[in-house]
Amino acid sequence: MPDVTILTERDLRACVALDPGSVDIVEGAFAALAGGGVVMPPILSMAIAEKHGEVDVKTAYVPGLSGFAIKVSPGFFDNPKRGLPSLNGLMIVLDAETGIVKAVLLDNGYLTDVRTAAAGAVAARHLALANVETVGVIGAGVQAELQIEALALVRPFARLLVWSRDTSKANAYADRMTARLGRPVAVAETPEALVRQSQVVVTTTPSRSPLIRAEWMHPGLHITAMGSDSSEKNELDPSIVTAADRFVCDRLAQSRVVGELRSAIAADLVGPDHMADELGAICAGHVPGRRSDDEITVCDLTGTGVQDTSIAVHALDVARARGLGQTVES
Amino acid sequence: MPDVTILTERDLRACVALDPGSVDIVEGAFAALAGGGVVMPPILSMAIAEKHGEVDVKTAYVPGLSGFAIKVSPGFFDNPKRGLPSLNGLMIVLDAETGIVKAVLLDNGYLTDVRTAAAGAVAARHLALANVETVGVIGAGVQAELQIEALALVRPFARLLVWSRDTSKANAYADRMTARLGRPVAVAETPEALVRQSQVVVTTTPSRSPLIRAEWMHPGLHITAMGSDSSEKNELDPSIVTAADRFVCDRLAQSRVVGELRSAIAADLVGPDHMADELGAICAGHVPGRRSDDEITVCDLTGTGVQDTSIAVHALDVARARGLGQTVES
Repeated sequence: MPDVTILTERDLRACVALDPGSVDIVEGAFAALAGGGVVMPPILSMAIAEKHGEVDVKTAYVPGLSGFAIKVSPGFFDNPKRGLPSLNGLMIVLDAETGIVKAVLLDNGYLTDVRTAAAGAVAARHLALANVETVGVIGAGVQAELQIEALALVRPFARLLVWSRDTSKANAYADRMTARLGRPVAVAETPEALVRQSQVVVTTTPSRSPLIRAEWMHPGLHITAMGSDSSEKNELDPSIVTAADRFVCDRLAQSRVVGELRSAIAADLVGPDHMADELGAICAGHVPGRRSDDEITVCDLTGTGVQDTSIAVHALDVARARGLGQTVES
Repeated sequence: MPDVTILTERDLRACVALDPGSVDIVEGAFAALAGGGVVMPPILSMAIAEKHGEVDVKTAYVPGLSGFAIKVSPGFFDNPKRGLPSLNGLMIVLDAETGIVKAVLLDNGYLTDVRTAAAGAVAARHLALANVETVGVIGAGVQAELQIEALALVRPFARLLVWSRDTSKANAYADRMTARLGRPVAVAETPEALVRQSQVVVTTTPSRSPLIRAEWMHPGLHITAMGSDSSEKNELDPSIVTAADRFVCDRLAQSRVVGELRSAIAADLVGPDHMADELGAICAGHVPGRRSDDEITVCDLTGTGVQDTSIAVHALDVARARGLGQTVES
């Protein structure tokens, strides 16, 4: 059997950064999803209640790529008590022609962080106003940082507002990000104040109840909601789905079950088969992105296997070109 | 993050054999499945039609074990044309307390072969006659060999019959197995002749149409059907499900969708919610195994995540005790 390449998080950080190249790769993944031939089965999800843990497995086959990834994402929420991160995991890359294992990417969730943030940039590239003065971010964790770094690649905004349930975390975030962005970062008093002042809002929380109300929305606003990825989570007032001029999602079948569409369906605001444009259709040019400066746009991101496959295959290509990683005889 | 252990197929063959210990481990896995606390989500299955390939992902959490496995099983059926095996794959072992990756088992399907064959031995241990003179095997591939090796551990039969659609493969199998078993192995003229002469029959094929008819069954017969694991496959006349005195399966929810129950449901012989005993309930002593010498018993095996988790955790324990494998800083 062919040898297997083992790449560590350090190797992968040397190969893939949150940069314009990664945003383009993820945009290409969404465009592929809108084309023919992509196979993306439903997420395998296992909850281990007695350990306060869960594991998701995602995959997608994308025609034309040399391989496809299978991603294992565990979340064990008592880990921080042990000094360990809640989220980690790895990706396996299989050969697209033979199914044989090409590589194991021991990324501890790094590639997921990158592809998730890059998807936010793709959404903003197509749906946000061309000129953005103020950005608001809700949440103060890793994705609150990375979403904003990614957004800065496509919309060079002037200032950032942050709000978090935990004010000390919001303050720490503002300090860190002021230094990192070289732009003013302020803590907003309330989510309402943040939304009303921002042209782009990104929600990055595991919230189980809405953080943004429909009546705070204003012409030109774009919201990317990337927090909900399970049937308990919900960041947006369900009426936003119908109140916004455009509600776009990364994958309709997922948004209906684990994303913001789920809450709107549960609230009987839309039917269970409610249709919405997928981000990929916009990336592929099948449907327009933002159509006017007044439109209110929303993009719900639940995370897709095509993003994983695209970033993993790219990482492996770069690593092999640079001779990184260990080779194991299989 | 803790280091990750990488084990190759060679390491794993040195750690785990198809022996009584492996049969007991798989029996324990089935018994656990009948108890509380096991979490075993539906199989993630992705068909890649344009490559004549498919990938299945299985997992199960078993309380009390130090880890749980996620198994990736690709099957790419044009591989033999390239001189590569159709089936391969790997298992990941995650820590049961933290979800952190403990090990990557690059087994190329070896552990699946072992745990699948061991399940056949578990079925025979509980459902076959105590004294078996003649065994029949249908199919002449890897599982035809391993199922019989495993059966020999629990039922020391006197002679073996084999039937395969391809007579040359049946002849080659008979030659190989005569040498390996040290017992007479003969090629049966027909499946009917094989079934009528055998006390235990094992079917090991990817057949899409029944190979065994109900009217060939006779008192005392036990059949293990391990071939069907997808909604196209079917080895037994669907009426066998109701004609046998006992129809047992490894997992009811899987047998209804990818096993022999599926065909009986499709033929309207039983309803979609038809109940049957699971093998684990027998292993755990909740329901009896064979109840008399006259009973006709059938066990449908579709393959379960608890088998993967149990054999993978065992393999890792043995490998670490022996200092096998490579350690990668994660």
